[in-house]
Amino acid sequence: MQVPAGKLLEGINSPSDLKKISEDQLEQVCQELRQYIIDVVSVNGGHFAASLGVVELTVALHYILNTPYDQLVWDVGHQAYGHKILTGRRDDFHTNRVYGGLSGFPKRSESEYDTFGVGHSSTSISAALGMAVASKYKGENDRQHVAVIGDGAMTAGMAFEALNHAGIANSNILVILNDNNMSIDPNVGALKEYLTSITTSKPYNRFRDDIANVLAKISSIGPDAYNMALKIEKSIKGTLLKRSNFFEALKFRYFGPVDGHDVKNLAKVLRDLRDIPGPKLLHCITVKGKGYALAEKDQTKWHAPGLFDKITGEIKKTKSEKPQPPKYQDVFGHSIIELAEQNPKIMGITPAMPSGCSLNLMMKAMPERAFDVGIAEQHAVTFSAGLATQGLVPFCNIYSSFMQRAYDQVIHDVAIQNLHVIFCLDRAGIAGADGATHHGAYDLAFMRCIPNMTVSSPMNEEELRNLMYTAQQDNMGPFVIRYPRGSGVMVDWQRPFKPLQVGKGRKICDGEDVAILTLGHIGNEAVNAVAELNAEGYYPAHYDMRFVKPIDEALLHEVFKKFSKVITVEDGCIEGGMGTAVLEFMADNNYQAQVIRLGIPDKIIEHGEQPELWAECGYDAANIAAKVKSIAVQRKAHTIAS
Amino acid sequence: MQVPAGKLLEGINSPSDLKKISEDQLEQVCQELRQYIIDVVSVNGGHFAASLGVVELTVALHYILNTPYDQLVWDVGHQAYGHKILTGRRDDFHTNRVYGGLSGFPKRSESEYDTFGVGHSSTSISAALGMAVASKYKGENDRQHVAVIGDGAMTAGMAFEALNHAGIANSNILVILNDNNMSIDPNVGALKEYLTSITTSKPYNRFRDDIANVLAKISSIGPDAYNMALKIEKSIKGTLLKRSNFFEALKFRYFGPVDGHDVKNLAKVLRDLRDIPGPKLLHCITVKGKGYALAEKDQTKWHAPGLFDKITGEIKKTKSEKPQPPKYQDVFGHSIIELAEQNPKIMGITPAMPSGCSLNLMMKAMPERAFDVGIAEQHAVTFSAGLATQGLVPFCNIYSSFMQRAYDQVIHDVAIQNLHVIFCLDRAGIAGADGATHHGAYDLAFMRCIPNMTVSSPMNEEELRNLMYTAQQDNMGPFVIRYPRGSGVMVDWQRPFKPLQVGKGRKICDGEDVAILTLGHIGNEAVNAVAELNAEGYYPAHYDMRFVKPIDEALLHEVFKKFSKVITVEDGCIEGGMGTAVLEFMADNNYQAQVIRLGIPDKIIEHGEQPELWAECGYDAANIAAKVKSIAVQRKAHTIAS
Repeated sequence: MQVPAGKLLEGINSPSDLKKISEDQLEQVCQELRQYIIDVVSVNGGHFAASLGVVELTVALHYILNTPYDQLVWDVGHQAYGHKILTGRRDDFHTNRVYGGLSGFPKRSESEYDTFGVGHSSTSISAALGMAVASKYKGENDRQHVAVIGDGAMTAGMAFEALNHAGIANSNILVILNDNNMSIDPNVGALKEYLTSITTSKPYNRFRDDIANVLAKISSIGPDAYNMALKIEKSIKGTLLKRSNFFEALKFRYFGPVDGHDVKNLAKVLRDLRDIPGPKLLHCITVKGKGYALAEKDQTKWHAPGLFDKITGEIKKTKSEKPQPPKYQDVFGHSIIELAEQNPKIMGITPAMPSGCSLNLMMKAMPERAFDVGIAEQHAVTFSAGLATQGLVPFCNIYSSFMQRAYDQVIHDVAIQNLHVIFCLDRAGIAGADGATHHGAYDLAFMRCIPNMTVSSPMNEEELRNLMYTAQQDNMGPFVIRYPRGSGVMVDWQRPFKPLQVGKGRKICDGEDVAILTLGHIGNEAVNAVAELNAEGYYPAHYDMRFVKPIDEALLHEVFKKFSKVITVEDGCIEGGMGTAVLEFMADNNYQAQVIRLGIPDKIIEHGEQPELWAECGYDAANIAAKVKSIAVQRKAHTIAS
Repeated sequence: MQVPAGKLLEGINSPSDLKKISEDQLEQVCQELRQYIIDVVSVNGGHFAASLGVVELTVALHYILNTPYDQLVWDVGHQAYGHKILTGRRDDFHTNRVYGGLSGFPKRSESEYDTFGVGHSSTSISAALGMAVASKYKGENDRQHVAVIGDGAMTAGMAFEALNHAGIANSNILVILNDNNMSIDPNVGALKEYLTSITTSKPYNRFRDDIANVLAKISSIGPDAYNMALKIEKSIKGTLLKRSNFFEALKFRYFGPVDGHDVKNLAKVLRDLRDIPGPKLLHCITVKGKGYALAEKDQTKWHAPGLFDKITGEIKKTKSEKPQPPKYQDVFGHSIIELAEQNPKIMGITPAMPSGCSLNLMMKAMPERAFDVGIAEQHAVTFSAGLATQGLVPFCNIYSSFMQRAYDQVIHDVAIQNLHVIFCLDRAGIAGADGATHHGAYDLAFMRCIPNMTVSSPMNEEELRNLMYTAQQDNMGPFVIRYPRGSGVMVDWQRPFKPLQVGKGRKICDGEDVAILTLGHIGNEAVNAVAELNAEGYYPAHYDMRFVKPIDEALLHEVFKKFSKVITVEDGCIEGGMGTAVLEFMADNNYQAQVIRLGIPDKIIEHGEQPELWAECGYDAANIAAKVKSIAVQRKAHTIAS
């Protein structure tokens, strides 16, 4: 739904329009931009609080920089709504995150102002440095390169690696540290405390004031003392101060902290910084959710609240008469507490996604046993491995696409040592509106090739609980449980734990002509397909593999002895996944059959609702049914009992 | 070859023996330990300079700590030879890195003193913190947890992530920064310069001295001035000093720098630190190669020099009458310069492996176009992506197993944006004596599933050159070239560049009954197998696939139309690799054939020479030949021309 923009904003179709506005009117632009974001997001959904927090910064940057010649890289990118609106996408902004519409993140193919596609955190300094080094090589010495990165994103090792290189690369780069003390959840770690200490206690300024007072008193003693005082002051400035800052230790010139909501001052500071060469960091204090009182107050809730009434702040819920199945995330969050109550060895680890994966429940209930380690997937995995060496049983919950960040640690620190770490891969498969960067497309392929690894996926809530129960049993070794974003299918899910046999699938229904093999939640689409097919006289069998490693060989022998036509269905990439594992079994056992593999095809899948994208990829119920019909025989009646 | 140990050392079979030695004799122990390392490594090979640099630290740690109850984690681990020798493995140390012998790195299954298996860099703080948090949870408050990490390893983001968590985790952890200013090559980056500035200019001490002098003079003015002086001193200590250090900003208590070769003082410092709770960092200055003059002088050369005459320092070379084929590494190093001379867009990037991958040649020839970014694979990839956005063509050279560190960046920053970054995966396949952590086993599986990616592997030096030439042509997108450690097969390799057709393989020889499909250098084993087989009356065909993505479909149609028996051979994991891609092609095209896939089996492969491990894995020439014979028909003569 499109909404009207304010008077100034409606005239801004590019940064050059913005530049025509007088500095005194910038506050008005900010107000209109903020209101526009509130108006659109409240009715269309999307990320919310992050973009509100950088309205002034966004306006000041496009006011001062010569974008797109000057290159602006947004870290993560869910704060870039203002940027999109100011760079020619205002009238399309209502299509944000909708299938076929604008991406929720900067995207190179969408606009020349989007210099670097983002979604995952902490890439901006590396990317901007690459651009800066390229400019230097080309002799474009006037070109500015700016990375805007949050204090949360700054905790990821990748950002540090980039700072370490940028500090000595002698290129023209400005890092703007957007310090709002938050990731999606409150930011954690030593660096956050350090930044807070700079901001709140202002030690430099206070120290300078203290010293100045004392020196003034000394000076009053007489001219000798005055000279001494000067000498002290010089000594302090000359040695300690220049080493007194974390970023200056990394050879960045540090500026700030400045108020990130004073647009006129930001414009002035950015103008000044433009003329200072080399690596610079501007520490900018902002409030996530700024300008929307409820969001300022509960920033986690308002990170991406869904639709809401912008006046009352009431978040709209899908109303339903009957009880709804819970999200897999909630099932994880409640079940890990139940398990930890029974098994004192269990620990919970999340890299900065406590509310997203629901480990926040355990962090509240058992704070000494559940850890948010910051945006730090690599550390999360190896920290878990360290715990496991001591006989503890860590559940390390990481979104599937973020697990790509810790792939080496999974192999090197967990699998090679055969340590008992349980990886819960949340957001596996198509992730939905977050799009290409967030789909958990590759985990089956990249996990299945690792020795010692067990790789499983539950078809429903009860199976998730039982896989978690199974995985925490003694001597299980590395154990992956992947499940999608969103709701399962069972209302009555909180059943007693039951161990499952590792490497065993199950038959959902017997059948004729064709066997459908599915893995995980997407199997429910096959269930729907089978119901539809039965009504039309097709009777495929359906098996839920449950494990892709070890794969259920007994089940596959049964399938290939009986069926010469097999369709595999998985919510994951088609190259190297479950269907491929089935082909490997066939080759190793000399079976011949026609096998059709359905899964995410070999291309980048953009954003949309999960069902829309399952359909695009060809493995929703309708597509599964069509595929079965294309190879099965239509019959009058089902001859085999289910 | 076993060598005799010194008088004290031969009595030390465990740290408890070491503890019986008087503090005054520790220097003697160090001397003997150093000599023993020199004696053994000079005749058996292995890493050299790193272990020499930490002899005193190793002795002091085992002297003071109650290992293995106290937990000692070595980062990377190639410096742990002294540790191995002191913890019961002295007499087996001559089997270091030999097939079936001791691992060149700490390994949990080898000794209870090896608390955490290593090989890749920068994992130690995360692992030690996991152990420390576990101890705290269990109430083992007396337990010490020590991570020894080099200044090179400290540049990797993972180490920073761990510091950021450890700083607030309130656990008992001591990080020993082994600062020798080196990775394998000289360490690079802002942090290194910062550490050097601490060490060389000693700003704190000098500042304290300066201030003290001035304050003394002020005090001499009179009692009022004296009080002022005290107040200044307090103010300085109370505010600035505690924030004046990089590590203290991360909430570590910083101690040092101390001389890492003064064993008695190290013992004293470690004893003192044992009683200080919470996160602590001891900055220890060492010299890589300490005690062996040549190694101190050229630390890169002596990182792992091979066999040498310990008296003259002459490094032993395999002598040969005829010219030998070059290493793939050298081919890369020379060819990128040739290409860069023709194409001004080409840039070279390595994360801390300039001499290992031979990018050092380009860094010397074209310093403005070739970058060592430190141990920072994540940054290396996204920095390359940033360069690519500006139309440059980066060759990002990363060892295959280290590329696991940057998997997300390959997907998120390069492939999704379809940027033209060329990944040269060095050490792909079995890496040899470095063992399990260093085998490049998984790259075909984890790269092949990524959209937009081209994945190739040269069978010889000329093909490597031509693949590099092909990859740098315009609009190639993400392009992987994987090749093994070590020598190729062509003496006359420096031929003019020729473009290759992407996705096209080639027929090596025609044949009957069986087709062998190979990828990359390991295809030369198949060539040898075929020669042997022909002599015995077997005539398999042999195809070099060259590309696994896109795979050569025309070639595969030809193969499957003609052959019903196919053997695939690759120097990579058998699950998800090239052979699997062939199975996918078969399924998608409804071919039926017997396919035997040879490759690295689904288990952890330890260390040994490459041919030994190829044999163990079943894909050296002899095993390939045996496999062919098991399914082929023996004939009197070859009926098809090659």
